[in-house]
Amino acid sequence: MLHSQKEMSENKPGFLTGTRNHVLDLDDFSLEELDLLFTTTDEMHTVLNQDKKKLAVLQGKIIVTLFCEPSTRTRLSFEEAGKILGADVINISSQGSSVEKGESLLNTMLTIQATGADIIIIRHPHSGAPHFIARHLNSSKVINAGDGLHAHPTQALSDLYTMKSHLGHLANRKVVIVGDILHSRVARSNLWGLLLIGARVVLCGPPTLLPKEFLRGDHRKNGHHLAKIEVEMNLDKAIEGAAAIMALRLQTERQDDGFLPSLREYSKMYAITPERLKTAQTRAILMHPGPMNEGVEISPDVAHGPQSVIEEQVNNSVAIRMSLLKLLLNPTGKIQ
Amino acid sequence: MLHSQKEMSENKPGFLTGTRNHVLDLDDFSLEELDLLFTTTDEMHTVLNQDKKKLAVLQGKIIVTLFCEPSTRTRLSFEEAGKILGADVINISSQGSSVEKGESLLNTMLTIQATGADIIIIRHPHSGAPHFIARHLNSSKVINAGDGLHAHPTQALSDLYTMKSHLGHLANRKVVIVGDILHSRVARSNLWGLLLIGARVVLCGPPTLLPKEFLRGDHRKNGHHLAKIEVEMNLDKAIEGAAAIMALRLQTERQDDGFLPSLREYSKMYAITPERLKTAQTRAILMHPGPMNEGVEISPDVAHGPQSVIEEQVNNSVAIRMSLLKLLLNPTGKIQ
Amino acid sequence: MLHSQKEMSENKPGFLTGTRNHVLDLDDFSLEELDLLFTTTDEMHTVLNQDKKKLAVLQGKIIVTLFCEPSTRTRLSFEEAGKILGADVINISSQGSSVEKGESLLNTMLTIQATGADIIIIRHPHSGAPHFIARHLNSSKVINAGDGLHAHPTQALSDLYTMKSHLGHLANRKVVIVGDILHSRVARSNLWGLLLIGARVVLCGPPTLLPKEFLRGDHRKNGHHLAKIEVEMNLDKAIEGAAAIMALRLQTERQDDGFLPSLREYSKMYAITPERLKTAQTRAILMHPGPMNEGVEISPDVAHGPQSVIEEQVNNSVAIRMSLLKLLLNPTGKIQ
Repeated sequence: MLHSQKEMSENKPGFLTGTRNHVLDLDDFSLEELDLLFTTTDEMHTVLNQDKKKLAVLQGKIIVTLFCEPSTRTRLSFEEAGKILGADVINISSQGSSVEKGESLLNTMLTIQATGADIIIIRHPHSGAPHFIARHLNSSKVINAGDGLHAHPTQALSDLYTMKSHLGHLANRKVVIVGDILHSRVARSNLWGLLLIGARVVLCGPPTLLPKEFLRGDHRKNGHHLAKIEVEMNLDKAIEGAAAIMALRLQTERQDDGFLPSLREYSKMYAITPERLKTAQTRAILMHPGPMNEGVEISPDVAHGPQSVIEEQVNNSVAIRMSLLKLLLNPTGKIQ
Repeated sequence: MLHSQKEMSENKPGFLTGTRNHVLDLDDFSLEELDLLFTTTDEMHTVLNQDKKKLAVLQGKIIVTLFCEPSTRTRLSFEEAGKILGADVINISSQGSSVEKGESLLNTMLTIQATGADIIIIRHPHSGAPHFIARHLNSSKVINAGDGLHAHPTQALSDLYTMKSHLGHLANRKVVIVGDILHSRVARSNLWGLLLIGARVVLCGPPTLLPKEFLRGDHRKNGHHLAKIEVEMNLDKAIEGAAAIMALRLQTERQDDGFLPSLREYSKMYAITPERLKTAQTRAILMHPGPMNEGVEISPDVAHGPQSVIEEQVNNSVAIRMSLLKLLLNPTGKIQ
Repeated sequence: MLHSQKEMSENKPGFLTGTRNHVLDLDDFSLEELDLLFTTTDEMHTVLNQDKKKLAVLQGKIIVTLFCEPSTRTRLSFEEAGKILGADVINISSQGSSVEKGESLLNTMLTIQATGADIIIIRHPHSGAPHFIARHLNSSKVINAGDGLHAHPTQALSDLYTMKSHLGHLANRKVVIVGDILHSRVARSNLWGLLLIGARVVLCGPPTLLPKEFLRGDHRKNGHHLAKIEVEMNLDKAIEGAAAIMALRLQTERQDDGFLPSLREYSKMYAITPERLKTAQTRAILMHPGPMNEGVEISPDVAHGPQSVIEEQVNNSVAIRMSLLKLLLNPTGKIQ
């Protein structure tokens, strides 16, 4: 269920008021929270890019990462964020964990909580797993590092921060998300954030990979914000005048599952190429959550070209996660 | 071979006298050592549950964990313990280790020792592996984190500490261990500790899952302590008047191996249920080393009920391991 | 292509002059660099073997290890080196990494660089992978921790340091490398170092496991240094008068690939035994990069005998890696 911005501000969960214990998705974020987060991220960005990257603000805190799906960049980014802040970070992967011995996820989480973990960062293949867990924990906090097809809030927050730092403001700016929207938790979480900020969102991709409600236009009925989501199946039209373009990773397995006629045709219709990029705004930025299939959803020239902010997204993701960890675990602590 | 309490006190290995280099099982622990360990654990428990969990007492020490069997809780607990004390902790799992390249375990351990590891925490599927290794190392110390069907001393020490903190003293108190005693290294190590402390131990489970010597009553001949171990196959009788009940994990594979007629029958006869718990002492505690099969050896109501101290066992396990690491690596160091 | 010592000194890359950014192999090392490295390693060796092994010289630096092949000793050694120096170390293995999701190695490395990694330590099955990557990174430095059949410079540097600390100087001393030279990156990197230092190198092994150019004598034409490499297929003759003998690991799979008639015959002809060791210099040292197949390429008596410096090689490998990390990341920083 979608909330209007008004509802969200009224029930505002707050890093500072002690009412925010978890980061599960962007649908319960207020603009005030986002502002605080981005200001803190500016400071963290400075720390991250200085010669000596080390703070003591989370010393004595225990961060546990539980990744039940493979990941390099997200786990690396979180581990680095925690360690730079001075916390102890302990990694658990589902291979070799008691999850495999048939223990329920809830009992695994209660056990991790009982060891004294201040925060648990979880990636799980089942949509909603982090929400379920968060409801049952009373001392450990939870960050969702990606759950099934559902949400990936910390990636979306990095993306929003990256857009904001390049475009200044996002209100009424055209942001195009291209590709497999249907299976993308990154797209879903970005949508919440972009709506909150007031961007004009255009979704583009083959009809088989677009959520049905958007195709039918159902979303237009659910409150004023959703009216800003448009669907445009022609990529050339979609990109026209865009301020930011986000290409999504295409799981090449989708072809076998019948979602696509062929990779070649997909690429021809939906790959971001230098020609297509020209129709966007002159200083439009090109994003991708990674890992990329170069030559499929994005051409190498674009991926590594002057408008690409893909590596910046990675760098910002560490700064955003530093902020989130700091705001959840020691909101009033001094940074330096 | 079993030693009487007298023998054990005479050959007492000591954290403080520098005569204890390893923790391999509980059979060489003296009451004096246990007292020192538990007093230190009280202090560690306070540190673990304060806002800032960080000491410097093991700074500059290298702890290597080598887990040749999957584990979440034990490795997590040790890693956390080491890091809170300020040590550097390095994890090795058997997947991807030179153990897999056909190197002998001893050579792997000599290599780890040669890197400068102050202590090696090893879990191994072969009973006796940690003892074998400890005999061949001269600078690295060894903690057994579970070896085959043999011993799991740090789990047993956590269990004893948990019982003591709830029941005050254990002398002549009835402690019931229920389930697959035959294959349980947890039960075996707990037995040594409970005998040392003078508890009245009752083992309960299907005859196929009880060690033969106990069934035949052989143990009654070996010194006065062993006389305190009783076998009772009827769970209702076993639990009557108990101060502590420890349910063991049932490996559901046992069914295929012919040890059990069916899980359903096992559960009917040996699961700890709210009804059965009523016949124990009013404030009896319910323990489980985890991971649990809820509905098999323990009912969910009991597992998460008011008498369950299962999560406390986990929390205490970190504090016990902090104490062991501290006492082995820096016995006279100041904690704060 | 091989460079003469003169050429190498002229194009000298320097830890102190800021011209060395990577450690990819030993072919671009100068004697001056080696001297500085070994002097620093003496200091690091002292730190490593003192009671409290901890420095702050790399505090605030991020070290990422990316191991795309299994390894225990090398990863452990690097992780320990980094942690002792006060850096944060984050491990990635190829299992569960985006490398497996089909991302190009270069994009993975650009991502790791973008998180802010100061140095990336990479082991990769493809020869040349670290060189390729180093050319494309502009802020992260690269250490080659073993690439295919190509190079393993940090192992070779440990070996050279171990030889030097026992033999004083290596000029014109006979160093015998025995076994599967063809597939050994350790042998290859050692060759560069031994030539630079001016040792007399003798390669010994079955003709199928010796690189063809050495068998044909081609190497004698390429500059004065290479003239010092000799090939001797008879192990007894090779060992005669040797100051140092390095046995290489024999991958037992080589037998299936047709390189060997049988392990038994290999062992009979090429295993280092106590009898064979007697024909070397009285205080000759015996080395092995590990993991060993005792009874195949080396007899247990020799492996664990008085002339074996195998465990010392391991200890020195940590000290060498501490030096390399320090010299690359904070060359002018004070150690204590």
